Amino acid sequence: MTKVAVIGAGSWGTALAMVLADNELEVKIWARRKEQIEEINQHHTNSKYLPNVVLSDRITGHVELKETLEGVKIVLLVVPTKAIRETVTEMKKELQAPVTIIHASKGIEPGTHKRISEMIEEEFGDSDLLKDVVVLSGPSHAEEVSQRQPTTVTVSSKSSTASELAQDLFINQHFRVYTNPDLVGVEIGGALKNTIALVCGLTNGLGMGDNTKAAIMTRGLAEIARVGVKLGASPLTFAGLSGLGDLIVTCTSVHSRNFRAGFMIGQGKTLDEVLNSMGMVVEGIRTTKAAYELSKKLQVEMPITSALYAVLFEGLKPEQATERLMGRVKKHEVEQLNIDI
Amino acid sequence: MTKVAVIGAGSWGTALAMVLADNELEVKIWARRKEQIEEINQHHTNSKYLPNVVLSDRITGHVELKETLEGVKIVLLVVPTKAIRETVTEMKKELQAPVTIIHASKGIEPGTHKRISEMIEEEFGDSDLLKDVVVLSGPSHAEEVSQRQPTTVTVSSKSSTASELAQDLFINQHFRVYTNPDLVGVEIGGALKNTIALVCGLTNGLGMGDNTKAAIMTRGLAEIARVGVKLGASPLTFAGLSGLGDLIVTCTSVHSRNFRAGFMIGQGKTLDEVLNSMGMVVEGIRTTKAAYELSKKLQVEMPITSALYAVLFEGLKPEQATERLMGRVKKHEVEQLNIDI
Repeated sequence: MTKVAVIGAGSWGTALAMVLADNELEVKIWARRKEQIEEINQHHTNSKYLPNVVLSDRITGHVELKETLEGVKIVLLVVPTKAIRETVTEMKKELQAPVTIIHASKGIEPGTHKRISEMIEEEFGDSDLLKDVVVLSGPSHAEEVSQRQPTTVTVSSKSSTASELAQDLFINQHFRVYTNPDLVGVEIGGALKNTIALVCGLTNGLGMGDNTKAAIMTRGLAEIARVGVKLGASPLTFAGLSGLGDLIVTCTSVHSRNFRAGFMIGQGKTLDEVLNSMGMVVEGIRTTKAAYELSKKLQVEMPITSALYAVLFEGLKPEQATERLMGRVKKHEVEQLNIDI
Repeated sequence: MTKVAVIGAGSWGTALAMVLADNELEVKIWARRKEQIEEINQHHTNSKYLPNVVLSDRITGHVELKETLEGVKIVLLVVPTKAIRETVTEMKKELQAPVTIIHASKGIEPGTHKRISEMIEEEFGDSDLLKDVVVLSGPSHAEEVSQRQPTTVTVSSKSSTASELAQDLFINQHFRVYTNPDLVGVEIGGALKNTIALVCGLTNGLGMGDNTKAAIMTRGLAEIARVGVKLGASPLTFAGLSGLGDLIVTCTSVHSRNFRAGFMIGQGKTLDEVLNSMGMVVEGIRTTKAAYELSKKLQVEMPITSALYAVLFEGLKPEQATERLMGRVKKHEVEQLNIDI
């Protein structure tokens, strides 16, 4: 039986572990916190991250990376963007043979502006312990995946063999997996939509409605596509599951942490207050910084991202930010959408 | 002071009349029902269609078309698709001088597959009483527009002068109006998204969640774009406010009639039961028929529209329709998205 190591036992890692277990794979899930792993092994639950769900006994919990990675050729990496480099460095020390890493994290690194797959490759360097990197992304709230709600995702890799491997591992009746050769587009779409979700939450927190949200999402996808295309992505990818699909689910669903964080900011909470009250990572905040830097470097106009950056890091008031966005002077829609293909 | 006749006093006609009145225009709104017009004139309310809203006294109600159209050069036409031809024919008889018609209806005519602007032009025929036709479309729930929530819309016409006229009439601080030269794309996007909203409602009614809805919306926009491009539209328009934007607002908002109708169908209600309980026009049902016919005629694949057609008119069970959609065999996302540009 194929063994898969799942590194990271948050909501998403656990939900994906359940999909693999449904597909009759042996899943070894790793987390640092001993109590959490004991709960997984003894009670088959992970109640802090995925309440009201019973895990298959094909899923075993581990606190030691060495033990987790033993005899494993496929690693599913699902840790916050901030922890990618450190986790990969630790993993590398424990690996005995080359692995394919499927990652399901969403973000861009501030400073370097690297995508997740680039960070993973960099940490492996010249080592032959990394076979391929695949990204798995799409409109997929962990809670719904754990309930076996019909869900669609995209996998992408430089290697089509690796993409197809990932597709075969995950695909089942409830969880439909599509391949897309555009690795840059899939990773960029997943990362940057979190910024747009924060802004959607923010306008809702200010009392604005669905019309405003739809406008922000439409313009938001256009600015994501602009920067993506400049980085070499195909514009079509942004119209797909990992672009538009993921944007929709993140901006309109009650499950989204980024949306909730934005909502609290719109209601007047400070960034520190929001982060303290969430108790989980809000990827969009770090990504906003990276995306803002990237837009400057690439000279791509990203008005929504820039407005949020000003709110988060420069003290602009949320109401001033939305005024700036909604009151813009351009009169022709095509000017707004032009993505310089 | 510029006078505008608003033909149709439903939610959307009334909300747009309020925008015009906010812009200090004199607005003459027409409806067939005497009690409704009396309510508008005596109480400055239109409580059945737009509750909890007070209308400006710059808005006057009329039951006679002749009186409504007197001295008017601009007509805003907001009646259900089904009533377009009949209303235009009646209007034509009463006009003394050429008018620009701005329409804000969304649909395609079954049988002929004509867009609204084509139907209007056809009814005017060789007469010189029609100057130009403009469409106004975008993510804009009437209720929120009436509350002056920030809203964005697109206007489009064969004549750029007419588009700019419409833009100038409607634009204000809360209601941002953009021009787009792609009349076909703007009308097709607005019409066909109602079908997708019905399917989103249907999956929700079956108990499926946000992941499924996002998948349907993503694939739905791709099939709308496929048919639109075949009809001569620009693919970029579908990524804009009248395409993606309107799709989002219709598929994710509690205000949407099409979504609500789909929800009831998903819960097992028959089409007749749904229509009886709504009490207002559900444009998407008629449009689904027209879109299905169009996809056959143009030989464009529209799996979501076809599945809904089978549910509405051929007795397919909602759960079978969603299985058909989610279990499709294609494995590569680009096959799904390819819009034959």
